[in-house]
Amino acid sequence: MSASRDNPFSAAVRAAKFAQKQLAASTLAQRNGALLALAELLQSKCATILAANKLDLQAALDDALPDAMVQRLVLSELSLHTMASDLRQLAALPDPLAACESREPKQLGWRLRKQSVPLGVLAIIYESRPNVTIDCAALAIKSGNAALLRGGKEARHSNAALAELINQALRAVAINPDAIACFSGQARSELADLLVFEREIDLVIPRGGAGLHALCKQLSRIPVLSGGIGICHMFIDHSADLARSVEVVLNAKLQRPSACNALDVLLVHEKIAFEFCALLCSALAARSETGTPTLKLKACAQSFAHLHSHPDLQPAEQDDFDTEWLAPTLSVMQCADLTAALAHIETHGSRHSEAIMTETAAHAARFFAEVDAAAVYHNASTRFTDGAEFGLGAEVAVSTDKLHARGPMGLQALTTYKWLGEGEYTLRT
Amino acid sequence: MSASRDNPFSAAVRAAKFAQKQLAASTLAQRNGALLALAELLQSKCATILAANKLDLQAALDDALPDAMVQRLVLSELSLHTMASDLRQLAALPDPLAACESREPKQLGWRLRKQSVPLGVLAIIYESRPNVTIDCAALAIKSGNAALLRGGKEARHSNAALAELINQALRAVAINPDAIACFSGQARSELADLLVFEREIDLVIPRGGAGLHALCKQLSRIPVLSGGIGICHMFIDHSADLARSVEVVLNAKLQRPSACNALDVLLVHEKIAFEFCALLCSALAARSETGTPTLKLKACAQSFAHLHSHPDLQPAEQDDFDTEWLAPTLSVMQCADLTAALAHIETHGSRHSEAIMTETAAHAARFFAEVDAAAVYHNASTRFTDGAEFGLGAEVAVSTDKLHARGPMGLQALTTYKWLGEGEYTLRT
Repeated sequence: MSASRDNPFSAAVRAAKFAQKQLAASTLAQRNGALLALAELLQSKCATILAANKLDLQAALDDALPDAMVQRLVLSELSLHTMASDLRQLAALPDPLAACESREPKQLGWRLRKQSVPLGVLAIIYESRPNVTIDCAALAIKSGNAALLRGGKEARHSNAALAELINQALRAVAINPDAIACFSGQARSELADLLVFEREIDLVIPRGGAGLHALCKQLSRIPVLSGGIGICHMFIDHSADLARSVEVVLNAKLQRPSACNALDVLLVHEKIAFEFCALLCSALAARSETGTPTLKLKACAQSFAHLHSHPDLQPAEQDDFDTEWLAPTLSVMQCADLTAALAHIETHGSRHSEAIMTETAAHAARFFAEVDAAAVYHNASTRFTDGAEFGLGAEVAVSTDKLHARGPMGLQALTTYKWLGEGEYTLRT
Repeated sequence: MSASRDNPFSAAVRAAKFAQKQLAASTLAQRNGALLALAELLQSKCATILAANKLDLQAALDDALPDAMVQRLVLSELSLHTMASDLRQLAALPDPLAACESREPKQLGWRLRKQSVPLGVLAIIYESRPNVTIDCAALAIKSGNAALLRGGKEARHSNAALAELINQALRAVAINPDAIACFSGQARSELADLLVFEREIDLVIPRGGAGLHALCKQLSRIPVLSGGIGICHMFIDHSADLARSVEVVLNAKLQRPSACNALDVLLVHEKIAFEFCALLCSALAARSETGTPTLKLKACAQSFAHLHSHPDLQPAEQDDFDTEWLAPTLSVMQCADLTAALAHIETHGSRHSEAIMTETAAHAARFFAEVDAAAVYHNASTRFTDGAEFGLGAEVAVSTDKLHARGPMGLQALTTYKWLGEGEYTLRT
């Protein structure tokens, strides 16, 4: 498929690129005004949105979608209130386009500055959760980027209702509403049509599993952000406070198992493996007495023996150490030492979030220096890898690339810069 | 070809990745010490290097390589002196790995910082000029990156001699010399073997034409830097000082026609096209009287009529407006107004360097806002797009990507960052 007139996305993509230039030229007051107007609309049009959401929920039940997917579709008065409140917080953040740094050029006779500018046109591909439509539209507007938002068909009524409000909010502040275009996907095969616009689209952000990322990279020469896939490790060193480490493991694994920063693989130093595993089993037993959902453990041969008292225990297969669980399942491996743990992370990690529990400062320093990941923790939960937790405000994704942005991508990650030179008909000598 | 033991690059790539961790852990004094030791060696071993260079030059003559390629191969006592002096300047620049920014996380109980770190392992693919070996090795060492330097076979003796000195310089400061590996290419087909190391190589920097860039992107899933290809425009607005604008055109086009920031396409406002073209022809005639090499003009139908007095004039074909000349040739197009010029640049530019000559502040502001390129100039030559001219020190390439680094890529562009979190067994609440 080419970027021809037959392409179903042509008109919207070109209109978005045109509108982006106007958006980039808008004032901060206009862009913030759009966010505040949208916040108002989310609350005043609550009934309309929830009615549209009900249509999606009914269709999801009719189509017997998995329960987890249906849960992610649900909007409520409370969730709309939270979205409105997030928009007001985003409006209060500093202007990401304000950064401008003067540089001292080598030669006299001209002035040079480095000016933050929007990336241009973003294509964001996601599923299910309709709040992503609002989050991404808002981040794009605040950072002066146009956005092509391609949600899943299961959320089509909700997204269409939200798109109408985004349109109204932009028109309320005299920003061309073509800057934010919402589509409801029918099939993944359509992505090829969207991703053909190399000259128009500047960045593709897939918010989904590894399959969606790989498909986008295969279909397109447009840069694709790698992110959101975290095979996260925690190494329990022999000097760690074992009882407190158990609490961190449980927090990292169970506080929200479906998050990309949740723990996937526990690495335990062999010197303390027996004792640590016993403490872990006790803690899990205590939790299960309170009726908390259980944790499935997939253990290596050595740790299996130490974990035998846990009721939901299986021998790990090799694949279990290359799996992002997104569920209450944890792989466990005993390691000879820190060097072995580092080698395991190097080979099996996805460069997202990695942690060490240790009282040995030199071991923490070595872990910080040698682990190649977006976020590295010493005596803290991997669950902290998040734009809001990092104090960056909202995030559009968590990047596991090394180029451009690493870790939670906030407003600044949606900007690039231009070098602007002003002279007096100045010649290079 | 897989990254197996049969791959001819396997051992060197893995050794480089291993050595990079040690390089990243070295002190700034060690890294600068390596650069200073290398500067000394370039001067003390001058005779050895020039003897090796003579072998390459003889082979180039035997193989009847094009004259321009032979010129780029030549080393001399003076060029080695310049390389040594550049190394000393690089050693004096601040440490690109020193940047460390504390952040205020949302939750109490842990500390967060953003630490600059090297990208990791770079693969740099280039041809002919042996000084690139020293430039790139030096930038990599200073920024803590390992580098796989793949030069052309026409420079194999020179590059081997220089590689030996890099090795000695690294050993002199107790840095593992595997961090910089030099190869002499035989055929482009070998690149597939090199670019298969997705887990080991972090960035591919092709320094060559569009064909080499496209080949690297096709062969590899490793990020490939787009850069060094500049189809650069200059728009002469009707309010410009025309006589001074002629001087800027001649500087941008002729000061070094083989550079990527040299002018390729001249856009002339129709209101002043006749007068400007007459001035340009006079200036070119005056230059030719002094024996300066001439300029070939490829003109659109309208401007052709105004340029008829220039002896080397041809009607432009459509391709001429999509060509990076790298030679004393200039395409000329008459434009109805600024809007038409902006549309032409949007369609035909390569996002490198674009300029406007105007006395109208609003036109300059609009050009700055709307042109989507790494460097945008008002009343100054496009030739300023250069790391040294920008005050950034040496450059590894000029990026025309929008992500990561834009324009001249100095030391900082060879770094990324890590988020480092330290807690007290801190749980996310």
